[in-house]
Amino acid sequence: MPWAVRWKLWKVSQPPTKATSFVSEPSHTATTCHHPPMVSSTPTIRFCSACGSDRIEWRTPEGDNLPRFVCAACATIHYQNPKVVVGCLPEWQDKVLLCKRAIEPRLGLWTLPAGFLENGETVMAGAIRETLEEADARVVMGDLYTMISLPQISQVYVMFRAALADLDFGPGPESLEVRLFREDEIPWEELAFRTIGRTLRNYFLDRKLGRFPTRVSVLERRAPRPDLAAAA
Amino acid sequence: MPWAVRWKLWKVSQPPTKATSFVSEPSHTATTCHHPPMVSSTPTIRFCSACGSDRIEWRTPEGDNLPRFVCAACATIHYQNPKVVVGCLPEWQDKVLLCKRAIEPRLGLWTLPAGFLENGETVMAGAIRETLEEADARVVMGDLYTMISLPQISQVYVMFRAALADLDFGPGPESLEVRLFREDEIPWEELAFRTIGRTLRNYFLDRKLGRFPTRVSVLERRAPRPDLAAAA
Repeated sequence: MPWAVRWKLWKVSQPPTKATSFVSEPSHTATTCHHPPMVSSTPTIRFCSACGSDRIEWRTPEGDNLPRFVCAACATIHYQNPKVVVGCLPEWQDKVLLCKRAIEPRLGLWTLPAGFLENGETVMAGAIRETLEEADARVVMGDLYTMISLPQISQVYVMFRAALADLDFGPGPESLEVRLFREDEIPWEELAFRTIGRTLRNYFLDRKLGRFPTRVSVLERRAPRPDLAAAA
Repeated sequence: MPWAVRWKLWKVSQPPTKATSFVSEPSHTATTCHHPPMVSSTPTIRFCSACGSDRIEWRTPEGDNLPRFVCAACATIHYQNPKVVVGCLPEWQDKVLLCKRAIEPRLGLWTLPAGFLENGETVMAGAIRETLEEADARVVMGDLYTMISLPQISQVYVMFRAALADLDFGPGPESLEVRLFREDEIPWEELAFRTIGRTLRNYFLDRKLGRFPTRVSVLERRAPRPDLAAAA
């Protein structure tokens, strides 16, 4: 599903949370600890989805080595794992296709078509679906190009190169505009996500070299800018 | 975390479920439907983890295009997405390292070190961690090698090539035995998972060709064997 839709729905659907009273550093060695981490990738579980009990503990289950949300009533362990974002870089001659986002986050900024991989779906099928949903575009999927881990938000981006099948594309419900850009037209200052900027920069460099190896990398949280820190 | 530990814990911690009364084909077009899919990758949610209500509906949220578990009391949408399994193929001269599983599933069969990617972790860090946990082995991680989608169980395998740093390895808590195998010693009939067999077969073929391109593929559910069907 389109991540932006999910983000929007998530935002408006969040119940009041007690998370602000939790400390943010779970122990990875202690076997019992009632303080789950306060990071966006580990949403707090207050009730057991299996039995409805509110006796949820944050502790390391026996035989495991990381803390989890565990129901003290029925013993269900509620695992939480990273999500995969799949998308592609659709090419047409010397141009690439970008979508201007119609929804938050990053409304009005440009992105490559991408979104959360769904249950029951292959990574390639997900990338094809997202391209159809966001850009109403049909593509012939090419090689895997970038795989970017974002550990702070527990996401893994998986981006393919792709050949646009025709010029019959246009904005889907989540896009304001869809168009082709030559390298010198890319709106570098108006890209929605750092993963997209990295994928595009790699692409234009690799195109000059005539080879597109799969590139595995990591994007850590941006360090505070010294000039802003000094100004504060 | 090691998947096998999770599997074991999950098995013993499952509460009684009403899932057998659900139909198995959710509509992807209807906006309201109370029958979630009965597939292992979409565990049934009976209570809302945010507010504890049992008014859980299986329906397509507004602005979305797939059915989800939605709480009718507090409107929280409970998304479920594929999980990433990360691991590696550790090389030493002309040999590769395999682990004999000490736990279910596939107890007693051989595998490459691999397990579920954790929140807050990069794909490479996850592969290194799993290799340390299962084989007590230190590796220098190499290129991404195979990426295999398993849509029926909503998993994506991400396997790297890796160089074993030394011969100081041995079975971790989840392994009965860890050893190096030449190609002609690989126990092809005793491999734990099809993803592992595919990765190893690709590897030995690619080694003869002297190049190891990243290979993206899909493993669908095995079709029933005609001989068994005829016998039944």
